[in-house]
Amino acid sequence: MKRGFGSDNHAGVHPKILESLSLANVEHAPSYGTDDWTDAAIGEFKKHFGEQAQVFFVFNGTAANVTALRAITRPWQAVFCSDVAHINVDECGAPEQMGGFKLLPVCSHNGKLSVEDLDQNYIRRGDQHYSQGQVLSITQPTELGTVYSLEELKSLITWAKNKNLLVHIDGARLSNAAISLQKTFKEFTTDLGVDVVSFGGTKNGLMMGEAVIFLNKQLAHDFKYVRKQSSQLPSKSRFIACQFSEYFKNDLWKQIAGNSLDRAMDLYNAVKDIPGVTVREKPQSNAVFAKIPPAWVKPLRENFFFYVWDEKTFECRWMTSWDTQKQDIENFAAAIKELSK
Amino acid sequence: MKRGFGSDNHAGVHPKILESLSLANVEHAPSYGTDDWTDAAIGEFKKHFGEQAQVFFVFNGTAANVTALRAITRPWQAVFCSDVAHINVDECGAPEQMGGFKLLPVCSHNGKLSVEDLDQNYIRRGDQHYSQGQVLSITQPTELGTVYSLEELKSLITWAKNKNLLVHIDGARLSNAAISLQKTFKEFTTDLGVDVVSFGGTKNGLMMGEAVIFLNKQLAHDFKYVRKQSSQLPSKSRFIACQFSEYFKNDLWKQIAGNSLDRAMDLYNAVKDIPGVTVREKPQSNAVFAKIPPAWVKPLRENFFFYVWDEKTFECRWMTSWDTQKQDIENFAAAIKELSK
Amino acid sequence: MKRGFGSDNHAGVHPKILESLSLANVEHAPSYGTDDWTDAAIGEFKKHFGEQAQVFFVFNGTAANVTALRAITRPWQAVFCSDVAHINVDECGAPEQMGGFKLLPVCSHNGKLSVEDLDQNYIRRGDQHYSQGQVLSITQPTELGTVYSLEELKSLITWAKNKNLLVHIDGARLSNAAISLQKTFKEFTTDLGVDVVSFGGTKNGLMMGEAVIFLNKQLAHDFKYVRKQSSQLPSKSRFIACQFSEYFKNDLWKQIAGNSLDRAMDLYNAVKDIPGVTVREKPQSNAVFAKIPPAWVKPLRENFFFYVWDEKTFECRWMTSWDTQKQDIENFAAAIKELSK
Amino acid sequence: MKRGFGSDNHAGVHPKILESLSLANVEHAPSYGTDDWTDAAIGEFKKHFGEQAQVFFVFNGTAANVTALRAITRPWQAVFCSDVAHINVDECGAPEQMGGFKLLPVCSHNGKLSVEDLDQNYIRRGDQHYSQGQVLSITQPTELGTVYSLEELKSLITWAKNKNLLVHIDGARLSNAAISLQKTFKEFTTDLGVDVVSFGGTKNGLMMGEAVIFLNKQLAHDFKYVRKQSSQLPSKSRFIACQFSEYFKNDLWKQIAGNSLDRAMDLYNAVKDIPGVTVREKPQSNAVFAKIPPAWVKPLRENFFFYVWDEKTFECRWMTSWDTQKQDIENFAAAIKELSK
Repeated sequence: MKRGFGSDNHAGVHPKILESLSLANVEHAPSYGTDDWTDAAIGEFKKHFGEQAQVFFVFNGTAANVTALRAITRPWQAVFCSDVAHINVDECGAPEQMGGFKLLPVCSHNGKLSVEDLDQNYIRRGDQHYSQGQVLSITQPTELGTVYSLEELKSLITWAKNKNLLVHIDGARLSNAAISLQKTFKEFTTDLGVDVVSFGGTKNGLMMGEAVIFLNKQLAHDFKYVRKQSSQLPSKSRFIACQFSEYFKNDLWKQIAGNSLDRAMDLYNAVKDIPGVTVREKPQSNAVFAKIPPAWVKPLRENFFFYVWDEKTFECRWMTSWDTQKQDIENFAAAIKELSK
Repeated sequence: MKRGFGSDNHAGVHPKILESLSLANVEHAPSYGTDDWTDAAIGEFKKHFGEQAQVFFVFNGTAANVTALRAITRPWQAVFCSDVAHINVDECGAPEQMGGFKLLPVCSHNGKLSVEDLDQNYIRRGDQHYSQGQVLSITQPTELGTVYSLEELKSLITWAKNKNLLVHIDGARLSNAAISLQKTFKEFTTDLGVDVVSFGGTKNGLMMGEAVIFLNKQLAHDFKYVRKQSSQLPSKSRFIACQFSEYFKNDLWKQIAGNSLDRAMDLYNAVKDIPGVTVREKPQSNAVFAKIPPAWVKPLRENFFFYVWDEKTFECRWMTSWDTQKQDIENFAAAIKELSK
Repeated sequence: MKRGFGSDNHAGVHPKILESLSLANVEHAPSYGTDDWTDAAIGEFKKHFGEQAQVFFVFNGTAANVTALRAITRPWQAVFCSDVAHINVDECGAPEQMGGFKLLPVCSHNGKLSVEDLDQNYIRRGDQHYSQGQVLSITQPTELGTVYSLEELKSLITWAKNKNLLVHIDGARLSNAAISLQKTFKEFTTDLGVDVVSFGGTKNGLMMGEAVIFLNKQLAHDFKYVRKQSSQLPSKSRFIACQFSEYFKNDLWKQIAGNSLDRAMDLYNAVKDIPGVTVREKPQSNAVFAKIPPAWVKPLRENFFFYVWDEKTFECRWMTSWDTQKQDIENFAAAIKELSK
Repeated sequence: MKRGFGSDNHAGVHPKILESLSLANVEHAPSYGTDDWTDAAIGEFKKHFGEQAQVFFVFNGTAANVTALRAITRPWQAVFCSDVAHINVDECGAPEQMGGFKLLPVCSHNGKLSVEDLDQNYIRRGDQHYSQGQVLSITQPTELGTVYSLEELKSLITWAKNKNLLVHIDGARLSNAAISLQKTFKEFTTDLGVDVVSFGGTKNGLMMGEAVIFLNKQLAHDFKYVRKQSSQLPSKSRFIACQFSEYFKNDLWKQIAGNSLDRAMDLYNAVKDIPGVTVREKPQSNAVFAKIPPAWVKPLRENFFFYVWDEKTFECRWMTSWDTQKQDIENFAAAIKELSK
């Protein structure tokens, strides 16, 4: 399949990360996370999130979210999240089934939560008939490609802390947010009081692998058991760890995220003024959401795969990735222009 | 870490399988199992298990077991397994927690179940207070390195079918059993009426990846949801699939399993007559279990890592893998001999 | 506490039902549902719901809902319900935790679901990332005291059946609906294709006890295990069964439901024209929802307990029960009038 | 059915307890445990277990065990219990399914656990692959009618506390143990460091109702949510509470337990020397276990119902209850003697 705009998990593995697998494939290594590669990768995360960070590798994004949330809630509690949150609509009920807890979806605007909406849903405290919110889960960047500003994050997290809630970040594409915000990871997570982060690798040039990062060290206490019981303990841990080490080495992550964001901006600029195309807004991360005439979808997808995000409005999601090239954008824009004639 | 005898998951990735990852790393591929590599790998499994086989990739062995069992039991049912079964003692309660069902452990001899012992535990049918056995789970080869003969499998499976039970094989090292039995996979699974198999890759030279194979097609009906809800749907599926395709190509799997078994036999022959060493029995798979004087453990492990299997008897498990070399065996035996002087 | 309008579970036990407990308290009886009283009560239910009905007693309403739904869903499936459904907002996450499945709340109007709204939520069929709706759960009467007409039920159930969904009725107050609709139970459940009903007793004059009624016989197959595993198998089953037998004897249930509805209508008529009172609508069941000036709440509740249903609008719920007397209504209306002066 | 020896839940309700239901059936009462009867009953429990006791009513014994254990374990932990424990073999997997945790059954002798056997099972601490024991659950009296002495309890609880485990008592018949030991409840629970007790009512003359008693106050913190989410919150709570108040009033509980134990001793004395009867041991609670010739079972059960406990050895369980009369024992013994001629 040619490069398209379907998803950043349609792209393959960044060559340097692929090479890291070969380099780690030497002799024997202890299994289940006790090897040197794992230690080294954890060290890299500590550089970015602070020394107190407790880091655990898991296989995929759903697992990172579910295990993180299982660890910090009891089944009779609840997790506030946006109505379009991945945990709410794209994990086939894994959070509820594996964790037992309830999700309390809150309406969102462009994928974002607001304190006002959260306040409306912060009800019936102490009422034994009602699942008690224990965690606020924020997706950054959101499922709609928007990025919470530092101010927005602060207000959400302050609200949560005032309510004695814990804060989880679903960061399947957290690196994109860092680039978009021009902040270090620490500045918009640890420093704001975030408790635990699901940190994505698979959508950012890795072959597979995600990290659960406890910034609140005490919450990590039993996590090794949570991970194992959730079937998420990798035996040959070195092969996930080495990818992350490479990802952080020489700021490769910046290059990967940077290319994704730059190409999304290129795409935005290339299509926003084409008649018939209505772009939702200037991209903050690696996705452009745009409505196009229904008749354009089929011919366009023949050469450039992408998803129709909303089957009713024909809003499409065009997603860039580490390997998207300027030429890809130009070709795609040209094809759209051709259709608009 | 030098090559040792700790576990077959201490070994790295077979060079050809590593190479397959590079070869699959081209352009874009659809995610979540809809790519060509996944189709091709499934095709390979069908060649070995029969055309009706329904194959799904997951990340690790615990997941293969848990998702397979979740799919074929309801939470108020139970799974008969041996008392030393991986699902019973090495998965941190994942089967019970993720599947809700109960395990009914049955005493074993050298890791094996017998019809007699199963019969003793087949009780209280129809009694609403008692979890009703619905599945017989057999580990092949067993956790103690023994291999059920075809006759033994037949008698267990006949017993199960007569009781209207489904049959699951935990085959984390199923290839080793195939080599040991000198049978095709089909002959000792599909043809005997096995319903679902957890097929291991990680312990057999893959980087990571296992397959859940439904030989009873109808049981696979909802499995895609089971897998996703269990956080086991790989997004970049091609990178697990390509490993399995390579594994079956040119009978690489036979070479991998064959080397493991041959080296275990070499080890057995090299140490069985050393004074102070009591080998449990002639190896049928890739492990030698032997008791040695406690004082030998520390000096031996300095150069050759391995686990003390039973802390009370000082029985040790020495495990070979795809990369164990004749020289490794010779060196290890020499070190033991030296201690025995 | 004097009689008030808090809830129909604030009322005690109807004298005849209390007496039935004494009558059942003779000698010994087999436990766990194998006694004659249980058989007799099941026979009564069959008269009302049809001979194929499979009936099981449980302790309370949450349990009736949860066990019924557990029995007919797998954890990766979902249940469509209204956003104000008891299962969604008043059971502390029991459905999700005990059943594993996801609830898909659909917006409601006056407590009722519509086909249009359900259609909007019937999405992503076959998508492994999305919990697949398997059941439509309808509360009758609704949590807001409204009653679905036969036509409304038909259209909802037809929609569900066309989608291959099962239909569950949360009938904690189903008798009230029967009286309101002037229909037999069978006419608005069995005859319309309902699969399973949670039938309430506790809110209708019983001491405690609910019934799960499978109208689709096949779905009841494993229910005895579901009930036991959900900790809902009563050992002295006769003492729940005898209450239900009495409830149906000489149409006592009609008297109980009839009084509740008549008094609610009396209350509606007595207060609807009082200045300051805004009644939501003419009651169809045993509740009157009305907004009153906030300042009235405290003085009124000193003599007549009731709940403020919506803390923002000061809408109150006034609920009648089997023991509400005409004088109670008159006194309450007089107190309101006094405040309105 | 005539009075037999089937189970203490075959007996009805003690007349005074039945009367208490009528006395509580006045006017309205708040629901869900906020009524005066509930407060009063809790007060009674505090008298017997100490002021710090936190008491919650649930419907049945399985629920008392499951909710108590859910509250004090996380799903990746485990509960040590005897192999014949009710939670292990008579609750249809409810503990595992509702709580997620694993049971670690330990072999027992006459129903009792020993420190030696527990020690053998206290293994692999800190090993992420193995469910970590968190609770020791002790049944008192045991399922085999034996009663742990104060010394035995002390040694078990000391062992648990040294291992940092919590201690749960399954006390479905705890009153019988109190009479047997001639101790106050406090002396053999609270004073020994027990953390939580499942206190039985149903098998001791109540219609239905059990109590979960947290002696370790902190562990009760979230229990109201645990109970509700487990579908065990009684709405008309007063009707369970009033039974317990009556049970403790004027030491009725001593009379009930005393009669059960005295009649069991009568039975033991009446049958122990009859040729063909082999009594296991002198009863410590309200059950006599005895082997009889298989041919006697059918004729005996025609007039006196009882269960064959072990279908292989034809050991029978003869259970007495609050309503067993001296004449019942005499008639039964006479019938056995007749058969032995």
